[in-house]
Amino acid sequence: MGIITLITDFGRQDEYVGLMKGVMLGIDPAARIIDLTHAIDPQDVAQAAFTVESAWRYFPEGTIHAVTVDPGVGTERAMLCLEFQRQVFLAPDNGVLSLLLDAEPRAALRRLDNSDYWRCAVSRTFHGRDVLAPVAAHLSRGVEASALGPAIDPARAVRIDDLKARLQANGELRGRIVHMDRFGNLITNIDAGALRSRGSSWEVAIGSGRIRGLSGTYAEAESGALLALIGSRGYLEIAVNSGRAMDFLSARRGDAVRVRPLPDKTGTRL
Amino acid sequence: MGIITLITDFGRQDEYVGLMKGVMLGIDPAARIIDLTHAIDPQDVAQAAFTVESAWRYFPEGTIHAVTVDPGVGTERAMLCLEFQRQVFLAPDNGVLSLLLDAEPRAALRRLDNSDYWRCAVSRTFHGRDVLAPVAAHLSRGVEASALGPAIDPARAVRIDDLKARLQANGELRGRIVHMDRFGNLITNIDAGALRSRGSSWEVAIGSGRIRGLSGTYAEAESGALLALIGSRGYLEIAVNSGRAMDFLSARRGDAVRVRPLPDKTGTRL
Amino acid sequence: MGIITLITDFGRQDEYVGLMKGVMLGIDPAARIIDLTHAIDPQDVAQAAFTVESAWRYFPEGTIHAVTVDPGVGTERAMLCLEFQRQVFLAPDNGVLSLLLDAEPRAALRRLDNSDYWRCAVSRTFHGRDVLAPVAAHLSRGVEASALGPAIDPARAVRIDDLKARLQANGELRGRIVHMDRFGNLITNIDAGALRSRGSSWEVAIGSGRIRGLSGTYAEAESGALLALIGSRGYLEIAVNSGRAMDFLSARRGDAVRVRPLPDKTGTRL
Repeated sequence: MGIITLITDFGRQDEYVGLMKGVMLGIDPAARIIDLTHAIDPQDVAQAAFTVESAWRYFPEGTIHAVTVDPGVGTERAMLCLEFQRQVFLAPDNGVLSLLLDAEPRAALRRLDNSDYWRCAVSRTFHGRDVLAPVAAHLSRGVEASALGPAIDPARAVRIDDLKARLQANGELRGRIVHMDRFGNLITNIDAGALRSRGSSWEVAIGSGRIRGLSGTYAEAESGALLALIGSRGYLEIAVNSGRAMDFLSARRGDAVRVRPLPDKTGTRL
Repeated sequence: MGIITLITDFGRQDEYVGLMKGVMLGIDPAARIIDLTHAIDPQDVAQAAFTVESAWRYFPEGTIHAVTVDPGVGTERAMLCLEFQRQVFLAPDNGVLSLLLDAEPRAALRRLDNSDYWRCAVSRTFHGRDVLAPVAAHLSRGVEASALGPAIDPARAVRIDDLKARLQANGELRGRIVHMDRFGNLITNIDAGALRSRGSSWEVAIGSGRIRGLSGTYAEAESGALLALIGSRGYLEIAVNSGRAMDFLSARRGDAVRVRPLPDKTGTRL
Repeated sequence: MGIITLITDFGRQDEYVGLMKGVMLGIDPAARIIDLTHAIDPQDVAQAAFTVESAWRYFPEGTIHAVTVDPGVGTERAMLCLEFQRQVFLAPDNGVLSLLLDAEPRAALRRLDNSDYWRCAVSRTFHGRDVLAPVAAHLSRGVEASALGPAIDPARAVRIDDLKARLQANGELRGRIVHMDRFGNLITNIDAGALRSRGSSWEVAIGSGRIRGLSGTYAEAESGALLALIGSRGYLEIAVNSGRAMDFLSARRGDAVRVRPLPDKTGTRL
C-alpha cells in the first residue's frame, strides 16, 4: 500500500483536493492519501518549500509527496519528479524543492514528460488533478520513476535563494519568520544546526522583543512570557507560554529575526 | 474496496463528519472515505447541486456519493438513492440531485425506506449519521441498491429550477456567480458547452467589468488583469492573474454575469 | 485493520496532524485514521473532554482514540491509556478523560511509560507526534495495552470538576454553553438523561431568551424562531430554525443556561 501526501494552496472549502483523490483512487485503489496541508498561502512557493522539508522525515520509505503550489499552471514550466532519501517528490519546477536539492545536489531528478501517466484530457488550469495526481498514483502502484520522463541535471532546476538564514560577518544569524502556526508561534528559517554550531548561549531579537537563552518547552517560561526554543520543525521558534507570540509581538510573516551569540552562558531571560 | 465521498454543510470544526465516518467503518471497515467538501454554505442546496455535478466524473465506477445538505432533517422529506453513470448518489429529496436528474431524466431512483440499513436509533436531527452513512457503507459492502427501498419516478423528485444559465432571446447568456473559490476566482453557472455551441468570441460582463475573449490559463493575462476562462469545473470562470477577482470586482455569490457573442473574433481584452 | 481517531487543538492549516499520520502509517500501514476534530480551542481541555465523550459511541469496538490537547507538553505530566467500553483512549493526564472516568470509575487505566513504543527521538514540544501517534499505531497493530506501561488507580488521574450541569436545590438545572457549532447552535452541558429524569416539561432560559418545551427537530419551530431540543450529542441544544442561535442571542461559550421544570405540560413556545 503506497502512501501519497498532499501539500497544496487549494484550501479545503472547495472540492479541488477531493478531485485529486478521486483520480488517484481510480488508478490505485489501495493508495493511502494523507493531507499534509492545503493552507499554503495562494501561490507561496517558499512557504511550501519549508513545509516539504519539515514533513518528509516523518514518513516511511517509499512515500510519495505531491506538491501542488503552481502559479505557472498551464505555462511551459516543467513538472518534476525528485528521488530523495528513498522518498519521491512530485512538484512543478518553481523552486518548491529547493531545500531538498540544496541538501542533496546530485539527487535523481526527472521531468514528467510521459503523458501516458497523465489523465487523458489535461485541463490547462489544474495540473494537480490531471498530471500530479495520476502520476503519484501510478508510482504508488509500482511504476518506476524512470518511466515518467527523462533525467535532468538538478543544477538546472529552478531554485529559490536565501530560504534559510545566513551567518553575517559580525557573527549574527539573520533570519525571518516563515510561518505562524495555529498557536501563534513564530517559526523562523534559522535551523537548529546553524544555531548549535555557533555556540550555546544566544540572544534572540525580534521587533522590540529580546529573549536570552533557549527554553526546552513552552511551559518552561512563566505564563504569558516570551520564549525561544527549537520547535518541532527543527527551526528556532518564538512563542509565549499560554499565549500567542504573534499577537504579543504584532508579528507578521517575513519579519526579521536576529540571533547573536552571548559571551557568557547566562541562559536567563531578560 | 468501495469509495464513499462526502459533501456536507457541516464544516470541519465539529465532530459531525468524523461520526459519519465512524458509523461507516463500523459497517464496512474497508471503505475508502473521501471528503469532497464540508464547506457548503449552511443549507445551500443549490451550491451542493453544482458541487456534486462537478465532482462525480473524477471518481471511478461504483463510487458512492453521500450528500448531506438537509434543511428539512427530521421532517417527512424522503431520502433518495440515484444510480447515474455507474455511480450512486445518496441525498435528501430537496433538489440537490437536480443537475444529474436533468442530465439523465430516466435514471434509476429509489426512496431509502428500508430501515434495516439505518442505525438502530435514528435521531431526528442527524440523518447524515443515522441514515445516509450506514446506507452508504452497506452499499460499499455490496448490498444492492434495490434492497434499500422502492423505485420511484424521477419526475417526482424535487428539482431546483434555473440552476444553469439560459440563453436569452437577444442571444445573450445570462448566468450568475455560483461559487467563489479560495483563490477568489468567480465560478459561474454558464457551462462550456452552452458557450461553445454559440460561437467562439465573447464579451463577458460582470458589474462594471468587461472581458473580451477567453484565456486558456490564468497566467495568460497580464499580472493583475481580469480574465475569463473555462475553469476546471467546466464552467465559465472569472479570475485575475496573480490576484483575486472576488476582491477586484467586489463580487458576491449570486451576482449576474452576462455573455454576449461578438461579431468579430477580436479575442482581445479591453 | 485498526481504526485510530484524532482529536487535537492543532487546526488544519499546519502540517502537525499530517506528521502524526506519517508516524502512524510508518508503524501500521493498515491503520484507518479518522479526524474527529482539530478545532478544539487551543489548550481547552474541557472542550476536548466533551468531544471525546460525544464521539466514541459511534465507533466500532477496538477503536483507538488519540487526544492531543496538551498544554503541559514536555513537563512531568503523565500520558494515559484508558480502556473503556471495549475502546482505547490515549491522552495526557490533564482531565480530558474526566467524563469517561466518571462514567466508569474502575476502568483499566495505565501510564504510557514504556518508551519502546515511542519514536526514537522524542521532542519536548510535540508528544502527539512522538508518543501518542506511535503508541496508537502499535496498539492498532496488535500490541497489548498491558505492554505500554503500569496500571494506575483511576482515582488518581487528573479530573475536571463540574463539567456537566448540576441540579440545584430549587429543582433547576444550571448549565452552560460548552460548544457552538458551525450552524450557530448552542450545545450545553445539560444531558438528556438529567432532563428526562426530572419531568417532561421545561422552560429554558439563556440570557434574555426563554423557550418553553422541547422541539423534536429544527424545522419544527417557525422559521427564525428560537427552540430547544436534545441535539445529536445527547445534550440540550438551543437553536434557531433556519437561523443562528449564536447570533440571535449574542451568545458566547460559557454563557449560563438554566432549565426549570414547568408545573403544567404546556409544551408551547412563548
